[in-house]
Amino acid sequence: MTTPALDRDAGEPGDGRPAILLLSGGLDSTTLLALATRRGWTVHALTFRYGQRHGVEIERARALAAQYGVRRHVIADIDLREFGGSALTSDIAVPKDRSADVMSEGIPVTYVPARNTIFLSFALAFAETTGSQDVFIGVNSLDYSGYPDCRPEYIRAFEGMANLATRAGIEGAARLRVRTPLIDLTKRQIIELGQSLGVDYAMTSSCYDPRPDGAACGHCDACQLRLRGFAQAGTADPAAYAP
Amino acid sequence: MTTPALDRDAGEPGDGRPAILLLSGGLDSTTLLALATRRGWTVHALTFRYGQRHGVEIERARALAAQYGVRRHVIADIDLREFGGSALTSDIAVPKDRSADVMSEGIPVTYVPARNTIFLSFALAFAETTGSQDVFIGVNSLDYSGYPDCRPEYIRAFEGMANLATRAGIEGAARLRVRTPLIDLTKRQIIELGQSLGVDYAMTSSCYDPRPDGAACGHCDACQLRLRGFAQAGTADPAAYAP
Repeated sequence: MTTPALDRDAGEPGDGRPAILLLSGGLDSTTLLALATRRGWTVHALTFRYGQRHGVEIERARALAAQYGVRRHVIADIDLREFGGSALTSDIAVPKDRSADVMSEGIPVTYVPARNTIFLSFALAFAETTGSQDVFIGVNSLDYSGYPDCRPEYIRAFEGMANLATRAGIEGAARLRVRTPLIDLTKRQIIELGQSLGVDYAMTSSCYDPRPDGAACGHCDACQLRLRGFAQAGTADPAAYAP
Repeated sequence: MTTPALDRDAGEPGDGRPAILLLSGGLDSTTLLALATRRGWTVHALTFRYGQRHGVEIERARALAAQYGVRRHVIADIDLREFGGSALTSDIAVPKDRSADVMSEGIPVTYVPARNTIFLSFALAFAETTGSQDVFIGVNSLDYSGYPDCRPEYIRAFEGMANLATRAGIEGAARLRVRTPLIDLTKRQIIELGQSLGVDYAMTSSCYDPRPDGAACGHCDACQLRLRGFAQAGTADPAAYAP
């Protein structure tokens, strides 16, 4: 399976080069981890404990980082609850059972202000101290069209800013590349890519509002997108769902 | 006293509008706080505990925020020590008694990778949740010419990226402005500006390597730049220095 973004962003072999990979423990970033590893990148994984309700994904990220043998896994503590403004980090209710039409309208309350900018900024620091010129992020502009910081034009602007922000920018040496091989894929295509790479999706957690034991709710936007993707791929989601 | 940057970035009255201000408790950001307050902005101050050796500045920031009656003061915990790479957050020695010539060569070891990008990213989240369209940061391109993320072209690139990253970017409503009124000023000019605004510089801390009681070392780059600035302004630095 090839797509323009896959070819452009992950097509070339890593040849052991170091890269930073933002790993949430969800379906997208886990597929990305499998892809980057298969292509020969030496992955340094970065996960955030940012006050999200769905903290179970951090444990999944830890297990996945170990399974894929990443060079180093940093779990950074940042507290975005201080700023509020999102259903994922505050008392705003996570919406359930919304139709695809409603989901695609406007910016969802699960949008966390500036989250990808903050995540990529930490990745930039990690890249600079590990000598990495490449940052992998599993953003997707199709399923998450309402999130401003998942759009290709945002990613390119971040990359441009980053290349002015760091030693590389002033010394004219290495340039940072933000790689988004999943950006043009549907959820179905991401799942099919992951399956071709042998990803064990039972280990991943996508739910915005999981039970304490980690079981997914099955009704939030993330669960619905995921379940629909598996249905379209003609296979069952192996993850645990609350009855 | 007027300069192009002052006119452009802080000349217009705030008229009570909310703004985010990055407050380190040092000389520059305190002058900035006095300026923004005087111009009528409703300041939300943001300070970081990022694993810096010079943690005393956080206590100074707290006292200054109270003195200037900021609307809200968030002290965000982020651990940049995970990434290393700087004398300010690791065991690399803070350089002492360097001449101005040596200081201006290349990027100093006190540069913290991606620090301003991380700080501004949090400010972006804070701006979004407080309805602020303005972020004040006390960067200075003269004294810190070796820091890539203090340059005007970097600030403009961040601003452009930020306007694609947030609700404002997608809804086309408010645009974010990163205001850097001190960027073209010498240390002497910053001190003179602060004095005209009644800043009590005894409350500020600039030292990279202060004693536990907060007394400045007098020998690191930051102390030397500060002491030279006061000397050029023809006045004594009221801060406490270790004997």
